Amino acid sequence: MNTYRLSEAGDGFWARRMKLVRDTVVPMQHAILENRTPDAEPSYAIENFRIAAGLADGEFHGLLFQDSDLAKWIEAAAYCLKSSPDKELERQVDAVVDIIGKAQQSDGYLNTYFIIKEPGKRWTNLRECHELYCAGHLIEAAVAYYEATGKPAFLDTMKRVADHIDSRFGPAPDQLHGYPGHPEIELALIRLYHAANEPRYFRLAQYFIDQRGTQPYYYEEEYARIKGEEYFGGLHELGREYAQWHAPVREQRDAIGHAVRGLYLYAAMARCAAETNDSSLAAACDALWDSAVNRRMYITGGFGATHHGEAFASDYELPNDTAYAETCASVAFILFARGMLNLKRDGAVADEMERALYNGVLPGMQLDGTRFFYVNPLEAVRGVSGVSPEHRHALPERQKWFACACCPPNLARLIASLPDYAYDADDDSITIHQYLGGVCELPTAGGVAITHDSNYPWDGHLSWAVCPSQPGVRFALHIRVPRWCKDARFYIDGAEQPVEGNILNGYITITRDWPAAATVVLDLPLIPRKVYSNSHVRENAGRVALMCGPLVYCLESTDNPAPLSALRITKDAPAIVGPYDEALLGGARMLSVEGERLICEDGLYSDSPPAFEKITLKAIPYYAWANRGLSDMSVWICE
Amino acid sequence: MNTYRLSEAGDGFWARRMKLVRDTVVPMQHAILENRTPDAEPSYAIENFRIAAGLADGEFHGLLFQDSDLAKWIEAAAYCLKSSPDKELERQVDAVVDIIGKAQQSDGYLNTYFIIKEPGKRWTNLRECHELYCAGHLIEAAVAYYEATGKPAFLDTMKRVADHIDSRFGPAPDQLHGYPGHPEIELALIRLYHAANEPRYFRLAQYFIDQRGTQPYYYEEEYARIKGEEYFGGLHELGREYAQWHAPVREQRDAIGHAVRGLYLYAAMARCAAETNDSSLAAACDALWDSAVNRRMYITGGFGATHHGEAFASDYELPNDTAYAETCASVAFILFARGMLNLKRDGAVADEMERALYNGVLPGMQLDGTRFFYVNPLEAVRGVSGVSPEHRHALPERQKWFACACCPPNLARLIASLPDYAYDADDDSITIHQYLGGVCELPTAGGVAITHDSNYPWDGHLSWAVCPSQPGVRFALHIRVPRWCKDARFYIDGAEQPVEGNILNGYITITRDWPAAATVVLDLPLIPRKVYSNSHVRENAGRVALMCGPLVYCLESTDNPAPLSALRITKDAPAIVGPYDEALLGGARMLSVEGERLICEDGLYSDSPPAFEKITLKAIPYYAWANRGLSDMSVWICE
Repeated sequence: MNTYRLSEAGDGFWARRMKLVRDTVVPMQHAILENRTPDAEPSYAIENFRIAAGLADGEFHGLLFQDSDLAKWIEAAAYCLKSSPDKELERQVDAVVDIIGKAQQSDGYLNTYFIIKEPGKRWTNLRECHELYCAGHLIEAAVAYYEATGKPAFLDTMKRVADHIDSRFGPAPDQLHGYPGHPEIELALIRLYHAANEPRYFRLAQYFIDQRGTQPYYYEEEYARIKGEEYFGGLHELGREYAQWHAPVREQRDAIGHAVRGLYLYAAMARCAAETNDSSLAAACDALWDSAVNRRMYITGGFGATHHGEAFASDYELPNDTAYAETCASVAFILFARGMLNLKRDGAVADEMERALYNGVLPGMQLDGTRFFYVNPLEAVRGVSGVSPEHRHALPERQKWFACACCPPNLARLIASLPDYAYDADDDSITIHQYLGGVCELPTAGGVAITHDSNYPWDGHLSWAVCPSQPGVRFALHIRVPRWCKDARFYIDGAEQPVEGNILNGYITITRDWPAAATVVLDLPLIPRKVYSNSHVRENAGRVALMCGPLVYCLESTDNPAPLSALRITKDAPAIVGPYDEALLGGARMLSVEGERLICEDGLYSDSPPAFEKITLKAIPYYAWANRGLSDMSVWICE
Repeated sequence: MNTYRLSEAGDGFWARRMKLVRDTVVPMQHAILENRTPDAEPSYAIENFRIAAGLADGEFHGLLFQDSDLAKWIEAAAYCLKSSPDKELERQVDAVVDIIGKAQQSDGYLNTYFIIKEPGKRWTNLRECHELYCAGHLIEAAVAYYEATGKPAFLDTMKRVADHIDSRFGPAPDQLHGYPGHPEIELALIRLYHAANEPRYFRLAQYFIDQRGTQPYYYEEEYARIKGEEYFGGLHELGREYAQWHAPVREQRDAIGHAVRGLYLYAAMARCAAETNDSSLAAACDALWDSAVNRRMYITGGFGATHHGEAFASDYELPNDTAYAETCASVAFILFARGMLNLKRDGAVADEMERALYNGVLPGMQLDGTRFFYVNPLEAVRGVSGVSPEHRHALPERQKWFACACCPPNLARLIASLPDYAYDADDDSITIHQYLGGVCELPTAGGVAITHDSNYPWDGHLSWAVCPSQPGVRFALHIRVPRWCKDARFYIDGAEQPVEGNILNGYITITRDWPAAATVVLDLPLIPRKVYSNSHVRENAGRVALMCGPLVYCLESTDNPAPLSALRITKDAPAIVGPYDEALLGGARMLSVEGERLICEDGLYSDSPPAFEKITLKAIPYYAWANRGLSDMSVWICE
């Protein structure tokens, strides 16, 4: 386990976002969960627990999985407490955790919907009812809170929940042979196994993973038992693929169905395979990764090309304006990448994780942390996005909150836990996957403090101060060098080292006896680049996207004349990166590139080729779009 | 009224299609309407009338507007009889008409659904129930049959229906103040007025037109009366625009809502305005034409960009792969164009009519006349079209028949009645809007026989033999010269005439004393051309379409390597028209143009620009796509 402390000094790009989550997002979400925010959709998530605990009277409010919103908030708060101790926040969490404990039933069961509303229907409709999903998120929250504070109460509550589930699910004849309709508890149980040092929890995670998609299909039997009485309606029609129970997981090769469900499942599969050296499970993970990343991923690290079933579409079907690309799906993908890194130190995986962090997750949040996107289209058009039936889901403005509010607290817990994605450590090695400013203490070789300093992604000069608590210890330091960087240079204590020959699977490796203090520097030239889609991506034919470092850029009509589709980048014109501007979109660099504006307004169709007008196109980081009022936006630009 | 006779000799492109309708489509559709086609969706349309007439026992089958399928078939058969007398077909129609007559109720009411199934609910749900729509189609059929055969029986039946409707609808307190949910009867009543010489029918058409969209809204009162009990469900949610009752018709300016309903309405408005010199109605027609043609029309003359409500989308929103572009909407547009030509001799209108005939209506039918498209996308992708949720409606293969079978008989009646769209005639002028091979006798100046001969659109040499029955009479002959033709030449009896100065509103005019026989020749150079979309059409940014004469061309993967989106036309490379090939797609010319195939298969996203491979792209007429098995298809090609 790493120990990362947020300092109040500037710690760079991500530390700023971690502070935003701590100072704005977590307090605001607590107020919403307590229904104290008049201008946001009321949540009732905490009130539901009070009612279930007998501390208040009233009806259950919200969706079947309302408990998970609170769970994710606790988890986010726990990570904040870990990097920034805060007695007031801890008191808030303790108060909530206390209510949760009181809501728990005597047999360990815990789910406010079924406790309040349908106590007789526990575990009868796994496909829809999210009981295991909510339990999973609460378990993750409990583990995080225990790790942040050392307080065992919430962890004990959730161990009793896990014990209850362990008693109800399994291969014995008197147990349910089912698995979660929405994967999540598998990941949670693996974490709980480590926190509580109880292998039963790991075996239960394995059971859920292995049982999925086996025949006879649990959900078909369940559907017969409930006589087709659905909560949401339509789930049955979406088919087995929707929740990835069309085949046993080891036989699955295509990333298919509901993107968040799939990616949570694959994340758990990868974690499980890493812990057990299960090669058939690892092979399935490799294939699913390949399918997701190499054929079904937006350039932003967004997943789920269709809003029908919030699902992966077929290979290379990646429409920009009707994209779903749910914020949660990018969060889930990062969990999957985290699992894949547990299987193998592979820079290609960490590169994709970085892509999704900057361009898949971060756009989900307004720059000031107060509003959120659920859906992240790659093209927005005023009057069409959020309006036409095909584009109704693809809103051009972030919302304060949602009736189905899965994304905002999911984004918060991910950003608050970035140190877990930035670093890996074992006894004799440290791996740096992501460039997270600030000090992180790692347990390697008796303890090593690593201080990272950079203005990345605005500047490619990255430096790490490496300070072992026992000078002279030998360990390996692995630092990722992104694939997009063609000309990286690195230095130890000022002396340049050859990159060629020192790089393996995307990481520079320095194995040595480390003195009390050493400085490692990596220089990544940040040269804007044009990126092309595979020729099979119909939507992007004839188009390019602009990237610089890990950032995907986009055009907004705020900076460029609408319609953006009439703009064309001049072939062979290089994109130029502008100066870092603290006043621009919370601090950013703009890109500019020479181009043309096509003018063809001679009727709807014309035999005359469009006239051209020279123009300088200006692009902003995609994560920052829709922060200056309504605007058209486009990532893929004609060339 | 014109008299056009199909000869068995080759009369060119459209006469071949008219014969196909006569020899294949009409007999096949009769068999389907009689449920005698085991491999097609059974229709029951005739059986419903037998049951309503008490000639058979059984239940009503089909949709609420099933009667209209039979009506359109009778109308198509009537036009065939007019151009090709055929005792056997006439006997078939007589038999059907006899049943229809027997189904009529004593008060004149006629609709099999309500007679058989819900006799108490007549006229209670105009918004959904299509009673006026079905009556309209039956009236049109009766007029056409009367005009073809002179037999009055069916016309008399339908006059009684019209009288019944006239008694039930109108401004009097004891009358219904409603109007049809699906416009159509307005057009029919105007025709009936002429056939029966009864102004009451015209006034009823006017009432329906004028009443539409006035306040209080009839449909809101009706919805309250039926307490929201809907037949289809969801219509209420589609809003007032869906069926164009959001405003009085004279205030309507945007082509909006269900495209077929809208275009039928606009067609009737134009006809009505032309008969009454109603300038405010004509102004609305002009605005609606401008909206439809200049901002909401596919290059194919397809209308209705979204399958949600089968509706017009907003300006310039013209997606190719998810297009709806219902065959019926192009038929309806041609009716609108016909009405606009009644208002004004305007070549721009006749040009758009031609566009829709070749590229909007004709693709709806397989080359052999046995299968039909309901939806006409401009891009098809195997594995996506007809498969993905967004593309499910956009089938890549024509169907034998449909549960909702509006399109096939609508296409049949339109093609069978082409002479009515090709020619206009009054006492002292003849106008040629479309180039229809064969002999047409027109009543101008005591009678003029016009014989057109050409292999258009494969050849631009068009000739007309003009033979008045009274040599020496003076009349004006107006011949359309399409706007796409830059260099037309014309000749009278071999002597070239100046085009410049002789052309007005898109027509060459020859006013003279005509000898017993004269030959007018128009030479239209058929040079393939690249067509560009207005810069506001997002979907077509950076793309061109190929046209030659009136024909839109497309690429099929049968002739070109897939994916078609990876193909690019070389800028400045001219498209070359190939030789006429009788063996190609029922006789056609292919276009070819130099291009490149982009090869970018280095992962999903790559920093390397795609490699290019020289390739000759081959395009076929769009109307002939999907006639050689499953294929990708694209109209708009990257340039």
